[in-house]
Amino acid sequence: MTSVITLLTDYGSDDGFVAACHGVIIGIAPQARIIDVSHQVPAGDIRRGAAILAQTLPYLPPGVHIAAVDPAAASARRSVAVEAGGHVFVGPNNGLLSWAVLASGGARAAYEITNEALFLTPVSPTFLGRDVYAPVAAHLCNGRKPGDLGPELPLDHLLSLPTPTARRGEGAVEGEVISLDHHGNVQLSVTADDLTALGVRLGDILAVSMGRRQITMPFRDTYAAAPPGNLVAFTDSAGRVALAVNSGDAGQRLGLPPGAHVRLARVADGWTQLEV
Amino acid sequence: MTSVITLLTDYGSDDGFVAACHGVIIGIAPQARIIDVSHQVPAGDIRRGAAILAQTLPYLPPGVHIAAVDPAAASARRSVAVEAGGHVFVGPNNGLLSWAVLASGGARAAYEITNEALFLTPVSPTFLGRDVYAPVAAHLCNGRKPGDLGPELPLDHLLSLPTPTARRGEGAVEGEVISLDHHGNVQLSVTADDLTALGVRLGDILAVSMGRRQITMPFRDTYAAAPPGNLVAFTDSAGRVALAVNSGDAGQRLGLPPGAHVRLARVADGWTQLEV
Amino acid sequence: MTSVITLLTDYGSDDGFVAACHGVIIGIAPQARIIDVSHQVPAGDIRRGAAILAQTLPYLPPGVHIAAVDPAAASARRSVAVEAGGHVFVGPNNGLLSWAVLASGGARAAYEITNEALFLTPVSPTFLGRDVYAPVAAHLCNGRKPGDLGPELPLDHLLSLPTPTARRGEGAVEGEVISLDHHGNVQLSVTADDLTALGVRLGDILAVSMGRRQITMPFRDTYAAAPPGNLVAFTDSAGRVALAVNSGDAGQRLGLPPGAHVRLARVADGWTQLEV
Repeated sequence: MTSVITLLTDYGSDDGFVAACHGVIIGIAPQARIIDVSHQVPAGDIRRGAAILAQTLPYLPPGVHIAAVDPAAASARRSVAVEAGGHVFVGPNNGLLSWAVLASGGARAAYEITNEALFLTPVSPTFLGRDVYAPVAAHLCNGRKPGDLGPELPLDHLLSLPTPTARRGEGAVEGEVISLDHHGNVQLSVTADDLTALGVRLGDILAVSMGRRQITMPFRDTYAAAPPGNLVAFTDSAGRVALAVNSGDAGQRLGLPPGAHVRLARVADGWTQLEV
Repeated sequence: MTSVITLLTDYGSDDGFVAACHGVIIGIAPQARIIDVSHQVPAGDIRRGAAILAQTLPYLPPGVHIAAVDPAAASARRSVAVEAGGHVFVGPNNGLLSWAVLASGGARAAYEITNEALFLTPVSPTFLGRDVYAPVAAHLCNGRKPGDLGPELPLDHLLSLPTPTARRGEGAVEGEVISLDHHGNVQLSVTADDLTALGVRLGDILAVSMGRRQITMPFRDTYAAAPPGNLVAFTDSAGRVALAVNSGDAGQRLGLPPGAHVRLARVADGWTQLEV
Repeated sequence: MTSVITLLTDYGSDDGFVAACHGVIIGIAPQARIIDVSHQVPAGDIRRGAAILAQTLPYLPPGVHIAAVDPAAASARRSVAVEAGGHVFVGPNNGLLSWAVLASGGARAAYEITNEALFLTPVSPTFLGRDVYAPVAAHLCNGRKPGDLGPELPLDHLLSLPTPTARRGEGAVEGEVISLDHHGNVQLSVTADDLTALGVRLGDILAVSMGRRQITMPFRDTYAAAPPGNLVAFTDSAGRVALAVNSGDAGQRLGLPPGAHVRLARVADGWTQLEV
């Protein structure tokens, strides 16, 4: 078993909550190498947590990945361990793990986490990260098998978030906002491949329709290719098309929340742009 | 000696201050395993720092625990190392360590930190964390004894914060606000045991009096048991009664600062509530 | 080669960007010891990043220091590895590394980073930290030489930020604001030695001129030596003179941005102050 354990939560960094998880892990598995994926997921924002985990995953070593974002706390949902692509994901069965599992090639097996002998007891219902996920991940790190955690769960009992989709149409591609990052870049479900299929090349001008509004911006290789303060579309580090403002905040400028519907079309090619 | 060193400060994460402490520790004791408890303690807020350290401590491995929150900087207070319950606490003698020491079973021995041979010199009076606490902790990690740090300090010279107390009365329990966490939950000095002694069971309705105001809310197993936006009391992950708003910020809603006096009484039992 | 890799970026902590860098490093060099210098550099603020790195560096072990702050992303600037004083600095050739290199005794050798065999491909032009700097640093940690990264770069091709200077004049010293820290302290390019050369001693009153404004404040050993809410000058933990407000925010109070010109003169000695 790998010695890498990663942590994604909405605990924030003000309190000692993350440190408690680290302490529990190190107390059980001193050899564990811990990577903090993020603890700044907005409270209870399953979708945002799922997006961060799935997009960071390709760069994380094989390991046990703890994710703890659950607006319903432990009251309603069972905890699961999911094996996928050399990884084990540990967290609530509320869709949070689903995009990362998908990005790992889909679930090979899933288990309910019910073996209290591996928990810190009494379990605080509002802090499963510390009392269930952390010790369970540490035990996996020490050689325990996912099957030791509890009974196998049929894969169709795993809850999934709807996968953001992009639909290629006649002269346009439609998609939705996946998330807004720290720099205010608006990440779309549309990929660079979708734009290529549309015939869009670097330098072309895109028409971006959001509800009744329409706005144009160039498609460039980076946000830095636009003059400061200007809107630009580019392929972000996850391979998705993102809308950005160079040295600015596109999320704020465009007012596009996660899930918002967006339509991209080509209105002019790079040659035209060069003539302008 | 353990190889775990933990750090609690009010340095924030904007500057390189925490990294400087890590660098100093690793330079002296490369084997040290560092856990960041929190660096987001509000500047100079001894009480908040003490609460975070004491509540995280039960989940931290035995080790050296550095705490650096001191509105008076080094100007007025001596630095101390305190042995308690398998831990060594290193920090200012201003009460910051007191709740954690208490939670560890009380001080076994204390030493003034005066042995400059173990410091980084010249010591910056505004950055003892880097120049005194970090190197001293690393040397402890390398096998130095607390007694090597300086002369023994009589235990009654250790400054303590007043311990938040809860007083069980006739049909009510009185306590105070310990702190507000990242989610806006208001943690009280009242424990789950205090409520049990009062005859309160899960599902009962509590009357919460704060000065002239009185408000009612159910006592549930988690904040998530209340409808979103509703007030709820629950036993938090430290075993304390906390007031929360599901998917909201109870601290903001109630306007209760740390130290504020609160009185809890039972106004209706769960049976009644179920009938409503 | 040392096993220490440090990271300074403007990636923030909301997303999984920093974790992706950690994951890449650990995947290639599992023995690497990673220190996060800061990830809260304001987006694209080269000057602030340079100041944090240079001032933290004296406390970091010899190692590979990654710095990724680049408003122009990869579009315009080449990446470099610079050997200086037992360290290797890896980042954009935009001045970000220059103050740290200077603080390490100046560049001994520099190399363009062009060896794509050591990169994660395809390289995202907006995430060199993950795709170029992290893997390159990990390979250096594994024993690769800086010369393996690409062709040697003449040292005069390294871009430098102007070094903040202080000029000692007749009865006064002139300097500029280097940066504002987390506590709102305003760090000047003026050093404690500059004030000593001016005849200033602890307790003296300084006249601080900023454009047309002039304000007086005592020079003390720490910010805590002033009454809460009062302005004070002191020697900060980097050996620079800083203007502070005890328990307050001097940056906000004085409205002094980085780069602002400041003039310090002695208006009264400590003896006078004691009589006031």
